[in-house]
Amino acid sequence: MQQFAAAAARNLAAVRERRPLIHNITNFVVMNFTANALLAMGASPVMAHAPNEVEEMAALAGALVLNIGTLTDEWVETMILAGKQASRRYVPIILDPVGAGATGLRTRAAQRIVAETRVQVVRGNASEILALRGASSSTRGVDSTAAVDDAAEAASLLAHALGTTLAITGPVDLITDGNRRLRVYNGHPLMTTVTGTGCAATAIIGAFLAVDPDPVSAAATGLAYFGLVGERAAERASAPGSFMIQLLDNLYTMTPEELRQGCKIVEG
Amino acid sequence: MQQFAAAAARNLAAVRERRPLIHNITNFVVMNFTANALLAMGASPVMAHAPNEVEEMAALAGALVLNIGTLTDEWVETMILAGKQASRRYVPIILDPVGAGATGLRTRAAQRIVAETRVQVVRGNASEILALRGASSSTRGVDSTAAVDDAAEAASLLAHALGTTLAITGPVDLITDGNRRLRVYNGHPLMTTVTGTGCAATAIIGAFLAVDPDPVSAAATGLAYFGLVGERAAERASAPGSFMIQLLDNLYTMTPEELRQGCKIVEG
Amino acid sequence: MQQFAAAAARNLAAVRERRPLIHNITNFVVMNFTANALLAMGASPVMAHAPNEVEEMAALAGALVLNIGTLTDEWVETMILAGKQASRRYVPIILDPVGAGATGLRTRAAQRIVAETRVQVVRGNASEILALRGASSSTRGVDSTAAVDDAAEAASLLAHALGTTLAITGPVDLITDGNRRLRVYNGHPLMTTVTGTGCAATAIIGAFLAVDPDPVSAAATGLAYFGLVGERAAERASAPGSFMIQLLDNLYTMTPEELRQGCKIVEG
Repeated sequence: MQQFAAAAARNLAAVRERRPLIHNITNFVVMNFTANALLAMGASPVMAHAPNEVEEMAALAGALVLNIGTLTDEWVETMILAGKQASRRYVPIILDPVGAGATGLRTRAAQRIVAETRVQVVRGNASEILALRGASSSTRGVDSTAAVDDAAEAASLLAHALGTTLAITGPVDLITDGNRRLRVYNGHPLMTTVTGTGCAATAIIGAFLAVDPDPVSAAATGLAYFGLVGERAAERASAPGSFMIQLLDNLYTMTPEELRQGCKIVEG
Repeated sequence: MQQFAAAAARNLAAVRERRPLIHNITNFVVMNFTANALLAMGASPVMAHAPNEVEEMAALAGALVLNIGTLTDEWVETMILAGKQASRRYVPIILDPVGAGATGLRTRAAQRIVAETRVQVVRGNASEILALRGASSSTRGVDSTAAVDDAAEAASLLAHALGTTLAITGPVDLITDGNRRLRVYNGHPLMTTVTGTGCAATAIIGAFLAVDPDPVSAAATGLAYFGLVGERAAERASAPGSFMIQLLDNLYTMTPEELRQGCKIVEG
Repeated sequence: MQQFAAAAARNLAAVRERRPLIHNITNFVVMNFTANALLAMGASPVMAHAPNEVEEMAALAGALVLNIGTLTDEWVETMILAGKQASRRYVPIILDPVGAGATGLRTRAAQRIVAETRVQVVRGNASEILALRGASSSTRGVDSTAAVDDAAEAASLLAHALGTTLAITGPVDLITDGNRRLRVYNGHPLMTTVTGTGCAATAIIGAFLAVDPDPVSAAATGLAYFGLVGERAAERASAPGSFMIQLLDNLYTMTPEELRQGCKIVEG
């Protein structure tokens, strides 16, 4: 897929040149790592969640990242406020439905955000994504239980029904808007041993959405970039602490050309 | 103490096999490091603190970790809610009374959690533990001022009175349920130069409580494991930043057999 | 400037000897890194933000650090409460007006904190500092847009008008209380690739304020120390992840004598 390898390189170069402001309303566990991942890749992160500030901030942003880990009712309202503002201003929105399916609060919040704002991409594991349809799939903490393959067909239908692009991550990532379907083969198992790598993937796609108007392309190339960064990191680190540091280092050092060559995106 | 060395190895192996879900309601400073420590050791961390979510989450968990750093009144209520649910479901609870004795809010919160829920283990420094009895011992920030030895006898009496196991950490750790008394000699001074190592110790004991029904054994073996990890980390790092990374790496790489051999737990 | 090089060495030695308690009310993104930076340099960090706790905690502290990132109305009130208590007890206060100028909430909060409490030092980039005067300067996320040099004269006037010391950081740092003006040439460009280095600089100045009664000296020497740490870190790391770890390591390993020799503070 030459086409997407070129898009990946272009997106990374564009983020480094334009340094888009990425407004994150995200969970407490990953705020620091997310901000560092965005900075390392070349974007400008900002975290803001006050009800009387998020509309102002979202209007300044190149993309809005909504992440429902460590959620409360107040934060749901804040996310809806920011999301509606972003929708009005055509600022792209990406949702990370952390733990949807695990508790009612999270499932309802994810469904409401998708219903009430113009979400361009939802990035989650299979259980979390399937929870968007109100399916009985159960999630276990923040880990996936349903296999990506079981979800492939359901994902296309669900993307169609919801009118959004779904990016389902796992050993192989599946991206679909209901019409097109891409798979990303980049990545490394050590990524599951560091907290917030899923959330970082979401934020990185957010940064690509700020420079790429095609959500399917932005999601697939963002996941390929972060997956390839994981592969490189695993060449230098074999345990979670040093691997986490290598992730940040390689987000910074990877060149668009290296990404173009290492990118493994296939159709279907 | 062959017996506890064997239990330590067994507990570590069991966590890696069963990957228990550990529900943390903890402070903002350490959420990321705690989640990473739990993931690195092989457990499944989740952080959740919404009043309308914690009962659902606690019911799914193998253990509940309550930590009162960066506390507010709302969080105290949430901890009590989660703790009562865990108590009903026989989910083990561990309390970290961060800063008890330093301010009235924290002292009262720690005492209330112990009174209103079935806490199996309290892990803190001597000042924090002594604050549970309403003693006049003062704590200074999150550092200990009272020596462990002064507290040994008081600890046994206090554990009896409170009906819980106390794990008092310092250069040597003391664990007692009022009847039995164990000391753990593993550890390294550099551990005090990284924020959240005490909180990580608490969470690690929480993971061991999910697989070991004996709170004295779970606490002592958890502290021996983390202490030995600290010793190994100090062989490769001599300053706080790289030491913190080595802690995460060694939580992941240490084998049950290495733990069995390096474990320094003695009775009395 | 022998005088300030000597003061820098003296301040660092004094922090390590007295280990002052530094009370931080700061943003969620940087809490962990700030606590680790303070611990690594030898201070005793505590984070506390409950309205019914901050007055008690501020009264125990050697310095109070107020940082308005990830702000809400409730936190503004808490900061004012803590700041008034610190003012009454002559506990020095340092303000980091993160994002002032970017949103109304942050600009108003920064101006109110300066008006209602006895702030000794404000540490920010040029845009954030200029926002204190109600100027129309716009900030972009947490990054500076106005050059330090444009701000030099305005800074002196503003420091006079506000009755505080301003520490404006950038490629070269400018410190002024309206009468004296110092510049600090220590630092490294990689510091801008790690989230929370500005906030850490603020907290480090806070620790120096706990041992140095002269705010201009405390601010300049704190920035020289952290800047020199950045220079040393850049000798061993060339990407953000490992650079962040090296920052923590070098905060710990740098000696007062090394600081005295490497310190680049000039008048005017």
